[in-house]
Amino acid sequence: MEFKVSKDFVAQIEQYVEENREKELQNLLDDIHYADIAEIMGELSDSEATYIFHILDSEKTAEILLELDEEVREKILKELSSKEIAEELDELSTDDAADIIAELPQDRKEEVISEINDVEHAKDIVDLLRYDEDTAGGLMGKELVKVNENWNVLTCVKEMREQAVNVQRVHSIYVIDDENRLKGRLSLKDLLTTSTKTPVSDVYIPKVDYVKVNTPGVEVARIMQRYDLEAIPVVDELGRLVGRITIDDIVDVIKEEADKDYQLAAGISQDVEADDSILDLSRARLPWLVLALLGGFITVKVLGLFETAMDVHKELFYFTPLIAAMAGNVGVQSSAIIVQGLANNTLSGSLWKRLIKEVSLSLLNSSILAVILIVGSHFLLGVTYDVGLTVSISLISVIVIASLIGTFVPILLNKFGIDPALATGPFITTSNDICGILIYFSIAKMILGF
Amino acid sequence: MEFKVSKDFVAQIEQYVEENREKELQNLLDDIHYADIAEIMGELSDSEATYIFHILDSEKTAEILLELDEEVREKILKELSSKEIAEELDELSTDDAADIIAELPQDRKEEVISEINDVEHAKDIVDLLRYDEDTAGGLMGKELVKVNENWNVLTCVKEMREQAVNVQRVHSIYVIDDENRLKGRLSLKDLLTTSTKTPVSDVYIPKVDYVKVNTPGVEVARIMQRYDLEAIPVVDELGRLVGRITIDDIVDVIKEEADKDYQLAAGISQDVEADDSILDLSRARLPWLVLALLGGFITVKVLGLFETAMDVHKELFYFTPLIAAMAGNVGVQSSAIIVQGLANNTLSGSLWKRLIKEVSLSLLNSSILAVILIVGSHFLLGVTYDVGLTVSISLISVIVIASLIGTFVPILLNKFGIDPALATGPFITTSNDICGILIYFSIAKMILGF
Repeated sequence: MEFKVSKDFVAQIEQYVEENREKELQNLLDDIHYADIAEIMGELSDSEATYIFHILDSEKTAEILLELDEEVREKILKELSSKEIAEELDELSTDDAADIIAELPQDRKEEVISEINDVEHAKDIVDLLRYDEDTAGGLMGKELVKVNENWNVLTCVKEMREQAVNVQRVHSIYVIDDENRLKGRLSLKDLLTTSTKTPVSDVYIPKVDYVKVNTPGVEVARIMQRYDLEAIPVVDELGRLVGRITIDDIVDVIKEEADKDYQLAAGISQDVEADDSILDLSRARLPWLVLALLGGFITVKVLGLFETAMDVHKELFYFTPLIAAMAGNVGVQSSAIIVQGLANNTLSGSLWKRLIKEVSLSLLNSSILAVILIVGSHFLLGVTYDVGLTVSISLISVIVIASLIGTFVPILLNKFGIDPALATGPFITTSNDICGILIYFSIAKMILGF
Repeated sequence: MEFKVSKDFVAQIEQYVEENREKELQNLLDDIHYADIAEIMGELSDSEATYIFHILDSEKTAEILLELDEEVREKILKELSSKEIAEELDELSTDDAADIIAELPQDRKEEVISEINDVEHAKDIVDLLRYDEDTAGGLMGKELVKVNENWNVLTCVKEMREQAVNVQRVHSIYVIDDENRLKGRLSLKDLLTTSTKTPVSDVYIPKVDYVKVNTPGVEVARIMQRYDLEAIPVVDELGRLVGRITIDDIVDVIKEEADKDYQLAAGISQDVEADDSILDLSRARLPWLVLALLGGFITVKVLGLFETAMDVHKELFYFTPLIAAMAGNVGVQSSAIIVQGLANNTLSGSLWKRLIKEVSLSLLNSSILAVILIVGSHFLLGVTYDVGLTVSISLISVIVIASLIGTFVPILLNKFGIDPALATGPFITTSNDICGILIYFSIAKMILGF
């Protein structure tokens, strides 16, 4: 349990590989979980990783294959023959096997599928490949235990024993009619506690949550999370049971979605990792920076409009980064809360109430900040009270406006079907910079008159 | 499945409550999932919600109680007698019951516990209350199915049937010795496919993942996610089986952790929601704004140092928000990637390699941005080439430094045991503002000489 991949351990493996000590390697890795071996293989060179892969038995390597980083997996798959890959896939559940096949080049896909021994398994995999990976169809597996509503529990248990051989974990027993349409479920508890003579139609629970094949993955995640489900059946357009999704796949969806939101908020488009190539990383980051640069051009223009202030109150220009920073921070705070509220479906009440709340909150915060600003800028920075007051009044207005932009941009984006997490990123900071500086100098001009 | 809480539905419920139409309400809510009813109750007034709560049966209300927003739950619990609360808890699993009791005031806790009918259940709950909520002990429930290694499968199945009555979902069958020490597990599949005459010691799997009672919740989440576990047993200091954690509780931990990181990155401390009170929201947001304001004071000071530039190249001051914004954006991008890498444990390779990579990436991005800046500022803003070149060279330096700060601050924080997500927030933007402006004007001074 407490095993952690250490540098020493990786070094030892590398040494064994170099010395070709197959037996020792097998012993060493025997007790190690496949997820840990996958991590170790990520640290090895391609040839070392492939060597390791070849000396382990296929039950373990199949799981390792699944856990590997996409890049490492791609390299390993290149080194394997189609027959070898097919053997790995034979060990995997249909959804996992389909995910791996989907990564292969088109011509290899067909070769590999034709090499799979278990024809039923191959058919199921091909069936799964039809679905978009971001839908319930793309997440589901074909392994499930189902019984006909017309059976009695005795027949049921017998049939189930046979079906269970192909199923790694039995979550629910689904009940179908003669047309394979989902009718309900039998709980495992029922299985353990009901007498075997009862007819299925007497004991099954007719109310069962399900999703359709084309339900988006994030929606499936929301449903399973909200209703605390560990597995959910998937039906086709005609209500026929075609697969099931288990919570472990949903955990990955939730994690990916959270990571994506976090990245969007930080101004990184596409799903990238720290270990991706420089070009990939640049592609994900540059567009946002260009946007921010163009926004910056506008701030330059805006500041140029207030050139005359420079002769009278040049210290006003010293405060521009402060004003811009405050606008940016407040905007991000406001939008982050809204983005999360939208994602978790915890936003309630009318827009009007939200507006009043947001304005009150930002008035409260900005008033406190304004006091700190007047006092601090006078004693720490030697700014005169009239300028300090001017900056403070501007600060309050800028913060109120920034929080409104931060609140309503994500709500608006969401209305138009755009991911609101976009709004927490450079988008909000840039527009708040521009608005903030414009408001700041306009107010200063009104008060100080230049 | 496709039910969504609508305004009309809530309005209808409010009307029925007002007209005291109990039967109609019961019919209306009969088919609605408890999670949905919890959401509806969040929209109702306190008295309406309490009314609804009283007319539903306790099997459903117990689950509703669990799903309610903390605030709403607090109000409902105040309206219930200790006996009524105890009845709800009788319906819940031990971990959920313990979570609810933990929210009660100290004196009510004891009253409620003494009213719980099932003594075993009460004992289990009291036992769970001992553990910190962020540890495995705080997450686990006592409901599990365990068998003695010395039994045969026949005894086993008989005992299990009895135990299963108290267990909502059977995940794994744990195998213990006479001292209650965890020895291994029996899979459900084994249960379905093994003949009943086999002795347990012949069929159980001795390798079983487990966590200790004091393992932190996030670590439990990491382990269950990494090893694709749907349930994990929890042992005490002596290796005795004391509970189990199921994946649905872990899904909540993962979600909360992701939300917390996202909020920290947006400059919001504490776990707040859009619907929390203004005072709570202010408390969570104000500290970061004060920090940013103080950082802003420093930028004012720094700009003052370059006062002389104002006479010769005032347009330099127009570019300060642009430089600060770019520094901030780049810093957040860099740190977000590192924070995620740390959280997901996908950072590999030496610090040195990471340094080279980050510098290359930021050189690549900043060079492209510099070209856009020179050309754009000349044609769009009418800036002379010497100033454009100066700003561009500064921009490149600022971006490189900002990306280094963004990369290494989270790594450093993590080394010192501080949540690295802190670094993506106002902390990074503020320090990058200061560094950025200082570097910008220093380079400008060197090149343009003022």
